Amino acid sequence: MDFSPSAKTLQYRQRLIDFMREHIEPIEANYHKENRRLNPDGQWREWQVAPMIHELKQRAKAAGLWNLFLPDAELGAGLTTLEYAPLAEVMGHSLIAPEIFNCNAPDTGNMEVLYHFGSAAQKQQWLTPLLAGEIRSVFCMTEPDVASSDATNMQTQITADGDDIVIHGRKWWSTGLGHPQAKFAIVMGLTNPEAPKHQRHSMVIVPLDTPGVTVERMLPAFGEYDAPYGHGEVLFDQVRVPKANLISNLGDGFKIAQGRLGPGRIHHCMRALGAAEKALQLFMQRGAERIAFGKPLLQLGGNLERVADMRIAIDQARLLTFYAAWKIDQVGAMKALAEISAIKVAAPNALQMVVDETIQLFGGAGMSHDVPLTALFAVARALRIADGPDAVHRATIAKVELAKYRER
Amino acid sequence: MDFSPSAKTLQYRQRLIDFMREHIEPIEANYHKENRRLNPDGQWREWQVAPMIHELKQRAKAAGLWNLFLPDAELGAGLTTLEYAPLAEVMGHSLIAPEIFNCNAPDTGNMEVLYHFGSAAQKQQWLTPLLAGEIRSVFCMTEPDVASSDATNMQTQITADGDDIVIHGRKWWSTGLGHPQAKFAIVMGLTNPEAPKHQRHSMVIVPLDTPGVTVERMLPAFGEYDAPYGHGEVLFDQVRVPKANLISNLGDGFKIAQGRLGPGRIHHCMRALGAAEKALQLFMQRGAERIAFGKPLLQLGGNLERVADMRIAIDQARLLTFYAAWKIDQVGAMKALAEISAIKVAAPNALQMVVDETIQLFGGAGMSHDVPLTALFAVARALRIADGPDAVHRATIAKVELAKYRER
Amino acid sequence: MDFSPSAKTLQYRQRLIDFMREHIEPIEANYHKENRRLNPDGQWREWQVAPMIHELKQRAKAAGLWNLFLPDAELGAGLTTLEYAPLAEVMGHSLIAPEIFNCNAPDTGNMEVLYHFGSAAQKQQWLTPLLAGEIRSVFCMTEPDVASSDATNMQTQITADGDDIVIHGRKWWSTGLGHPQAKFAIVMGLTNPEAPKHQRHSMVIVPLDTPGVTVERMLPAFGEYDAPYGHGEVLFDQVRVPKANLISNLGDGFKIAQGRLGPGRIHHCMRALGAAEKALQLFMQRGAERIAFGKPLLQLGGNLERVADMRIAIDQARLLTFYAAWKIDQVGAMKALAEISAIKVAAPNALQMVVDETIQLFGGAGMSHDVPLTALFAVARALRIADGPDAVHRATIAKVELAKYRER
Amino acid sequence: MDFSPSAKTLQYRQRLIDFMREHIEPIEANYHKENRRLNPDGQWREWQVAPMIHELKQRAKAAGLWNLFLPDAELGAGLTTLEYAPLAEVMGHSLIAPEIFNCNAPDTGNMEVLYHFGSAAQKQQWLTPLLAGEIRSVFCMTEPDVASSDATNMQTQITADGDDIVIHGRKWWSTGLGHPQAKFAIVMGLTNPEAPKHQRHSMVIVPLDTPGVTVERMLPAFGEYDAPYGHGEVLFDQVRVPKANLISNLGDGFKIAQGRLGPGRIHHCMRALGAAEKALQLFMQRGAERIAFGKPLLQLGGNLERVADMRIAIDQARLLTFYAAWKIDQVGAMKALAEISAIKVAAPNALQMVVDETIQLFGGAGMSHDVPLTALFAVARALRIADGPDAVHRATIAKVELAKYRER
Repeated sequence: MDFSPSAKTLQYRQRLIDFMREHIEPIEANYHKENRRLNPDGQWREWQVAPMIHELKQRAKAAGLWNLFLPDAELGAGLTTLEYAPLAEVMGHSLIAPEIFNCNAPDTGNMEVLYHFGSAAQKQQWLTPLLAGEIRSVFCMTEPDVASSDATNMQTQITADGDDIVIHGRKWWSTGLGHPQAKFAIVMGLTNPEAPKHQRHSMVIVPLDTPGVTVERMLPAFGEYDAPYGHGEVLFDQVRVPKANLISNLGDGFKIAQGRLGPGRIHHCMRALGAAEKALQLFMQRGAERIAFGKPLLQLGGNLERVADMRIAIDQARLLTFYAAWKIDQVGAMKALAEISAIKVAAPNALQMVVDETIQLFGGAGMSHDVPLTALFAVARALRIADGPDAVHRATIAKVELAKYRER
Repeated sequence: MDFSPSAKTLQYRQRLIDFMREHIEPIEANYHKENRRLNPDGQWREWQVAPMIHELKQRAKAAGLWNLFLPDAELGAGLTTLEYAPLAEVMGHSLIAPEIFNCNAPDTGNMEVLYHFGSAAQKQQWLTPLLAGEIRSVFCMTEPDVASSDATNMQTQITADGDDIVIHGRKWWSTGLGHPQAKFAIVMGLTNPEAPKHQRHSMVIVPLDTPGVTVERMLPAFGEYDAPYGHGEVLFDQVRVPKANLISNLGDGFKIAQGRLGPGRIHHCMRALGAAEKALQLFMQRGAERIAFGKPLLQLGGNLERVADMRIAIDQARLLTFYAAWKIDQVGAMKALAEISAIKVAAPNALQMVVDETIQLFGGAGMSHDVPLTALFAVARALRIADGPDAVHRATIAKVELAKYRER
Repeated sequence: MDFSPSAKTLQYRQRLIDFMREHIEPIEANYHKENRRLNPDGQWREWQVAPMIHELKQRAKAAGLWNLFLPDAELGAGLTTLEYAPLAEVMGHSLIAPEIFNCNAPDTGNMEVLYHFGSAAQKQQWLTPLLAGEIRSVFCMTEPDVASSDATNMQTQITADGDDIVIHGRKWWSTGLGHPQAKFAIVMGLTNPEAPKHQRHSMVIVPLDTPGVTVERMLPAFGEYDAPYGHGEVLFDQVRVPKANLISNLGDGFKIAQGRLGPGRIHHCMRALGAAEKALQLFMQRGAERIAFGKPLLQLGGNLERVADMRIAIDQARLLTFYAAWKIDQVGAMKALAEISAIKVAAPNALQMVVDETIQLFGGAGMSHDVPLTALFAVARALRIADGPDAVHRATIAKVELAKYRER
Repeated sequence: MDFSPSAKTLQYRQRLIDFMREHIEPIEANYHKENRRLNPDGQWREWQVAPMIHELKQRAKAAGLWNLFLPDAELGAGLTTLEYAPLAEVMGHSLIAPEIFNCNAPDTGNMEVLYHFGSAAQKQQWLTPLLAGEIRSVFCMTEPDVASSDATNMQTQITADGDDIVIHGRKWWSTGLGHPQAKFAIVMGLTNPEAPKHQRHSMVIVPLDTPGVTVERMLPAFGEYDAPYGHGEVLFDQVRVPKANLISNLGDGFKIAQGRLGPGRIHHCMRALGAAEKALQLFMQRGAERIAFGKPLLQLGGNLERVADMRIAIDQARLLTFYAAWKIDQVGAMKALAEISAIKVAAPNALQMVVDETIQLFGGAGMSHDVPLTALFAVARALRIADGPDAVHRATIAKVELAKYRER
């Protein structure tokens, strides 16, 4: 339970901070403006990636700040979940940093799935270019027609038909669907409704140009399309792919998903805490500079108490996330369910609270795109729903608590 | 302190409900889609009003559901603040209803200003077409370069120069600035920094086509541009208008503003509570229909407790708003400052809480434009800042409480 | 829905305020000290009433400030629930005032039960001396062995046996059980478990000196025994009373209880709000007088924001309580269930919040008996449980909301 | 930053758990009953220690579970702050355990003061019997007449007069003052108001039988006298002690106090979290056993969500406390001020929340002495005030945050 950053973490951390200070921070405000110009919300079929992103990715790759999330020492940086956690936090200070370091969702999760469960051919075809940052990918789980908080509700069918796998159904909140480099989706669906509850589903690789795949629209998340990265709705109409595209075996969907979600939630939460630190920094800066009623805003009313509460909330959630990461490293995600659920509630709620207070301090400016606060709020708000809503995670924690009580 | 709706309120209320059920509700979802198509966010210089809005306005006018907010019995409906409050709530159920009944901000406030303080000529030129719903108007108060929570910070200059009034400065969060029918702004600015604190500012009518007026951009509020109605930033560069455009006298700005803000806050708060009722209705509907883990969402975890807390929050805030409205009618807004501030804190926070919970229940759908929840959230979030942020209103309440304590 | 105090309310209110200012406030601190000396917690069998209480009761009676709670114009003051509500609030400023005006629980509820459902003989024997303030009474509902939040859990048996009614079971949280003048209890229990759910229970009058009645102990409520008024545990061991002691008929328990609980909850909530006003007053006073870090406490950190939040919470809960009272007067308690439940949640929670903040401001003194804050906290905390815990009331509100939704 | 328990911690922890399970838990409920009988609240001059406490202390001492808090390896157990923290948590499960292991406040803090700053003679006379558990001691800091949240307000005078030190003033909330074995107090007071702010105060040892020392009363804390351990008010009327009783030098009061408060706050917070675990355990137990509306309470409404929130709050606060303990061990308390303040806010508030919810679940029983919940609530509530109220700690955190911001 040693949360001190390892030597490797320390040096990567410093290099990330330096890189971000030198290359990302100076262009970020302009980037967002330029990106909004390039990618007007209404026209997602023509979304493009701003050239500076490509350049920064090359630079990051050259600097060896690349695929740090992947525990494999050859393909990634060989870091444990706990070692990587502080790096994810650093990246969370910027909305564009994760992709620049090839550490963005959902690609990280998809790479992990392929790394752990992909066949050699799948790895060569899909994992290699993902690791190279040449293509992007999509993960299709949530469905519009059922409460996806209960994953067993899933209706999209994945069935074997001769040498083919047939996918039929509709998914949404599929992140990255509108990205020009998105080449394939990992789709989860129902194969055998009669099997035991967690052996009914399968995962399959579906190239996005397969006939029958129709991206129907991109979805704003709390008013932000987050072009070209945001979420979309996609129809799979009797889509056929070869059996070779199946990941692991039919019925292995839940098994694969579980492995995917553990570290992924650590990444999400640490990025959220990085974002919270960024917001708190903006709070301090604005609060020190703006004057009202003859005093800096920080000195008015309960604002300094808010600073304390934000600091406590962030520090507590960070330690809890370190703890969950450490436990994943020690005993695996399946034995750290309650801990993972706990941070999945704590961190996004901490971020939402911090950002909401910071918006309030900024007044009108905080509502606009002049500062990234509403984008950070959208991140927080989405994260309280994505990868399991708060309610589901609270239920998991309570379940584990009940089991502890019964053992006593 | 009789909050029972008057006979007039009751009949207007029923007629509004019927009109909305018949004419607005059925088209609302389509309208928003169509409006987003007509008015892509990136292109505000070409914003237009969807034809169905013009038609509905004509229909509402013909039905006598028009200018209900105005206490004048000839020009409006002759309703007191308290009598109008429940009607504002009904309109708050829909984001487009207020304009259809010519009861939308900031036109209502501007009409009140012109009604109470305008010269005969000003009334003829600006009030008459506003009352007819033929033009729209803007109110320019908040500035980007100072903390506008402290209104005495205002830097835009309004000075007399011969027969002219010269306006110089920059304003933002000027609602309605991008609307194609917006014809003039009422601008508040600093005239005499040496005068007593509340006699330094003036208000003046500035036609938007006056040389030197440049609308620089429209601003998204929590991700929503709310085209064609949203908020903008405008530069007044040595703008000259004739002295006849001055409202009341130089130095009367605060006096005019005070009268404007009392009933206006009642309207805002009641619309917010109408919006909260709408959100709660969506919560009940979704919660009853969606199934997870074998039960309707409403039956899961603390959801029914949330229903109770939402109901309590809404009902409490409504009664408090009725009370503030009643007090404005009895003793005027200046003697109801604490009550007005109390609802300005309570109602938007109630709405924010209710909408946040409803988004959570809806999951992904709640984040999208498929339901109007993020738009309602933006309303709540903006309202906690606009017309005085929560902190300023809390300070006002505490000040009045301190005075009471001292009198004891 | 006119919440303005009636002329009768106004004059009673002023007379109560004057009486309390003249006779109660000056002696209150001393009374509590004296009362603690007279009634050491460990020795409840010897509890006695401080002589000054008897004197004050005589004085209040002589002044006509007596039985104001009772709607009957001859026996009480002929006030509606709404008319009495502001008077209950005034009494709530002092912990001893309600009894001095013969308006204390549970006697008020018992008098109402006897007034509405008692036979002529019961009225003569029990109601008359209660109205005269000569005796006190107890209400026995809650049981230690079952979750009394679900009243149908009740196990104490009330059965007919020839000309007798036999009571067998155990009750606790029976208020007033240790009072030297307590003469009888109204006991609720199970008569026929086979009858429809709300026709299974009965209420019966049991003189406390009946053989088989054993007061086993008095209970501290959050550390306060509240001698000589507090709550106790009592065993009814095959206790026999004549059938004439039955109130109404066998099986009428719930019907009687419902009538009892409506106005009683209004009284509780209004007293709670009076207590909250008292606490806020102490907050203002201490906050203005105590100096730390060179400033009065009120000027430090978020304290003035807290004042605003307390004021909003109190005023909202008061209006909601007026509304519930008004509705009881208009349509009866059975049709105002949701409104009664709403205040039962809102008012005690408002009081708890206000008192908790006030204790915090007072520091150590707030924890002690030097100010009545922990006693007020105990009132709040008990009230969130007594007469139905928050959870049960939230469930009632949600049920009514669901019914509304279904009717739509 | 390794929070894993050391081997020493692990074995002490297990031995403590075993000891408590075997010797303390079985007698605890009876002890409290017996103790209340022995020590009626009104008669603190005759307070006595229940014989079983003496026996248990002997047993604990014999078992080597003694003075574990003291970092000295000979006199104590040689544990670091972090190593001791989990042991303090275990002791926090029981209200009587800390004293049984000679690890109770304020003796621990006083022993640390004497250990670090006491002269050889002082150590022999006072530290040795304290370490042996033969006597008890008092710490006198808070004063009734000033806001003690600002320690520089302190008015009690400590002045040199020839070979004597003269103490004059009044203190309260002096813990342990009524204990029959309390032999001396460490008193802090003002020596030189002209000196720099943190060199004005001194600490001196005052035997409680010194002429001029009058214990005036014991104080209930939230209704609990906590006999024979609670808090009292004491008058020092021109009390004279020899100069040899001065701890360190005149003017060293703040220096001594700082060292005292760091580890002491870790102990308080860890005990609070142990208490929170105890309360959560009671919540689970009652919630599983009690039935209402046909279900165990845990399955009703939001109760399982509450379980999750309690678990998150406790785990977060524990990790934060480990972190603060670790930092004290690494860099000393003076450089861990913000971290110490953070847990001082987080842990007691977590406890208060958990206990409040547990009381609510227990209903009436939770308010009584049948379960230790109101006593735990009193602990939480007192701890939000003692050793610096929440507001002061929030201010410290904000100050450190401001400094960080300025360094950027």
